[in-house]
Amino acid sequence: MKKSKSRIAGCLMMAIPLAAWAHEGHTDDQIERAVEYRQAVMNIIGWNFKNMAGMVKGEVPFDQAAFSAYASEFQQASKMNLLSGFPEDSDDSDETDAKPDIWMDWEDFQSKFNDLQKAADQLAAVAAKGDQEASKKQFGAAGKTCKACHKAYKN
Amino acid sequence: MKKSKSRIAGCLMMAIPLAAWAHEGHTDDQIERAVEYRQAVMNIIGWNFKNMAGMVKGEVPFDQAAFSAYASEFQQASKMNLLSGFPEDSDDSDETDAKPDIWMDWEDFQSKFNDLQKAADQLAAVAAKGDQEASKKQFGAAGKTCKACHKAYKN
Repeated sequence: MKKSKSRIAGCLMMAIPLAAWAHEGHTDDQIERAVEYRQAVMNIIGWNFKNMAGMVKGEVPFDQAAFSAYASEFQQASKMNLLSGFPEDSDDSDETDAKPDIWMDWEDFQSKFNDLQKAADQLAAVAAKGDQEASKKQFGAAGKTCKACHKAYKN
Repeated sequence: MKKSKSRIAGCLMMAIPLAAWAHEGHTDDQIERAVEYRQAVMNIIGWNFKNMAGMVKGEVPFDQAAFSAYASEFQQASKMNLLSGFPEDSDDSDETDAKPDIWMDWEDFQSKFNDLQKAADQLAAVAAKGDQEASKKQFGAAGKTCKACHKAYKN
């Protein structure tokens, strides 16, 4: 309980300087575009992920070449400048599911995004080698990095 | 006039086989996802394009390193499998500005997309070399490939 309280206090302390410039430097139009951009990157990641998931779950036949192509685009999308789509003052848009916690623990958010990038690299590499079981296993690992971040930072 | 008529007839003839399987093979959910995917790719292309445009127009200071980073992501986005986001039966969604002409002249649509890819390759290469004037010039050339396709195929 004590630990939990101190964590909350820590978050609040971090939030003060962020809040101080939270609405500086970006117009509404810029915020809207940033939100659209990050959602577009997430959408591409999600599109490829779901297409792979269909094969992993057996909803569609497993096609290693197609799976590898999706894994490759998943990797490319993970290399996009997603974090630039999260300016500090973009947490109160009606259009976003992003939690304010993102800006209260930016380093952790960034670290979780790095986990996704690494998992995406590994998935693309494994898929390209053509081993279906290994591809499925690494797909599961990549999925966990998605979930870890969404759980913490997505409403 | 004769030529124009034969072209229209040609389009109609092409449209018949397309129409025959226009609504086969895709669920509403798949169509919706495909439309979202292609719009996401377009959004990323547009985000990077507009960020470069701001510098080219002098709305923000020209920063060659930032310009080059945008040009690089513009190029990466142009390499995504955008065309897979245009299944034949995705022309009557309320959510899309895509003209049915896309599927009536798929080869031309594909060719215009290839023009964008080539222009994006050149833009990324020129921007990486660091010449501001050459970057601006190639940016203009890339913009023309966007316009050419939007004019023909976007409402």
